[in-house]
Amino acid sequence: MEVRIKILFTSICHTDLGAWQGKNEAQRVYPRIFGHEASGVVESVGEGVEDMKAGDHVVPIFNGECGDCVFCKSKTSNLCKKFRVDPFKSVMANDGKTRFWTKQGEPIYHFLNTSTFSEYTVIDSACVVKIDPSASLKTMTLLSCGVSTGLGAAWNTADVQAGSSVAVFGLGAVGLAEIREISEGGVDFSFECAGNLDVLREAFLSSHEGWGLTVLLGIHQTPKTLPLHPMELFDGRRIIGSVFGDFKGKSQLPEFAKKCMHGAVKLDDFITHELPFSEINKAFQLLMDGKSLRCILHL
Amino acid sequence: MEVRIKILFTSICHTDLGAWQGKNEAQRVYPRIFGHEASGVVESVGEGVEDMKAGDHVVPIFNGECGDCVFCKSKTSNLCKKFRVDPFKSVMANDGKTRFWTKQGEPIYHFLNTSTFSEYTVIDSACVVKIDPSASLKTMTLLSCGVSTGLGAAWNTADVQAGSSVAVFGLGAVGLAEIREISEGGVDFSFECAGNLDVLREAFLSSHEGWGLTVLLGIHQTPKTLPLHPMELFDGRRIIGSVFGDFKGKSQLPEFAKKCMHGAVKLDDFITHELPFSEINKAFQLLMDGKSLRCILHL
Repeated sequence: MEVRIKILFTSICHTDLGAWQGKNEAQRVYPRIFGHEASGVVESVGEGVEDMKAGDHVVPIFNGECGDCVFCKSKTSNLCKKFRVDPFKSVMANDGKTRFWTKQGEPIYHFLNTSTFSEYTVIDSACVVKIDPSASLKTMTLLSCGVSTGLGAAWNTADVQAGSSVAVFGLGAVGLAEIREISEGGVDFSFECAGNLDVLREAFLSSHEGWGLTVLLGIHQTPKTLPLHPMELFDGRRIIGSVFGDFKGKSQLPEFAKKCMHGAVKLDDFITHELPFSEINKAFQLLMDGKSLRCILHL
Repeated sequence: MEVRIKILFTSICHTDLGAWQGKNEAQRVYPRIFGHEASGVVESVGEGVEDMKAGDHVVPIFNGECGDCVFCKSKTSNLCKKFRVDPFKSVMANDGKTRFWTKQGEPIYHFLNTSTFSEYTVIDSACVVKIDPSASLKTMTLLSCGVSTGLGAAWNTADVQAGSSVAVFGLGAVGLAEIREISEGGVDFSFECAGNLDVLREAFLSSHEGWGLTVLLGIHQTPKTLPLHPMELFDGRRIIGSVFGDFKGKSQLPEFAKKCMHGAVKLDDFITHELPFSEINKAFQLLMDGKSLRCILHL
């Protein structure tokens, strides 16, 4: 049930940076191939894979969908029991082994079900989505994580409707007082993308009492718990987490890809940089310099 | 916009006990008339009150509804801007004064918009609900807080459907392992009524990954924040607070009262004790002894 993919495009996300830097001690497993946002072509499929064949255009997804567990069968969750995102996982589900090897026979570990900073990678078929071959593979890379997570959080998790007020935290220095003033009592929806507890609290308090919803997207590396008092929940503000924009990857992403092809989302506008894969360290440096970017690496 | 009510029945809730004991320093205001769950008859109405008249049967509500603010006009919140539940409030909204006086002219403070441990009380009309005069006033007392809060949390806040699994925490010693075992992965809904952070965390973890909802009802007196890590929200469990069962008091309680009269809820079954009002201290003692009870006091 595994697929070998020739990666053609990949891009870098803060999650790769944080894992490479080893910010969370418990997740430090090296050597390891990072990268989880990509697109490519199926090179070959293993036994049991029936929904893909060599030559298919695909995007890997770090939050897989087996289609068979209680979560996949539920309409309300995209957290597959076996293939959901798991930063602690570093081997394949089937045999607990790796598919990358050094010359010395020592294992190189997997990352987020995907490991796309590589010319070829092996991924469980539950974490590979086949897309329309006429779609631009370069832009489809963005559906693998960034755009799906962000737009899905607004569309699927929060169900933001036209006319709602929204604030996104973690894009820059946006103050609480600023926001509550311009939105008359707070926004309907706030999105926390910073992975910072102070920002999380600001995002929560910037939402409107009675119905405000804070959607958590940021990765919080410290062991500190939520900076909210239980009684604050009685003010009617809510907080929920969103993984992969609540998209069920295999069943919903192909349709989303088609919508993007028809212009529902202008994926090209999200791309800020393009570099050859050999210059990946330059892209990492840009991220470390605090640049807000989405850099596509060409293999 | 105020109503003077002759209280006929009142009962005691843990919130009265906690406030009387002064568990939360910032809420200590004495002398004060406690009590917020009651029923009675309108003795007279003040200027501007048009929806009630002397002789009407009513129940006070600690979580009022002015009908005019952005919250009351929203379908999604019952937290009236001016008359929502506020444990810090001890005076009337109109003039910041009290309506109870001692012989020495010193004020006696109000409690939770209601103050029902009294033969007569004065309440803002936003916090008084007129009910069908053919309903039993004794049992309608329970709609004033306990039954509305509890059943509303299940009906309105959580929208529990037939076939869902549910666990209620705070009724006794119910273990996490017990629950997760019998419910195969956790319950769909858990209700935290204990006001205890360990219990809250148990309730949260006893709910099912992917869709489990914990509804917070308990009053948490300590300054400690939620014992949940932000990343735990990515497991798809949710937690929300519920005030007065998300009922909009003035607009929805009369209908709920009618349903109870027609047997939808057997209110009589909730009553465990009945005592004359003069024996109120006995009822407090029973609560302090840790008894789970709903004692109706007859005035």
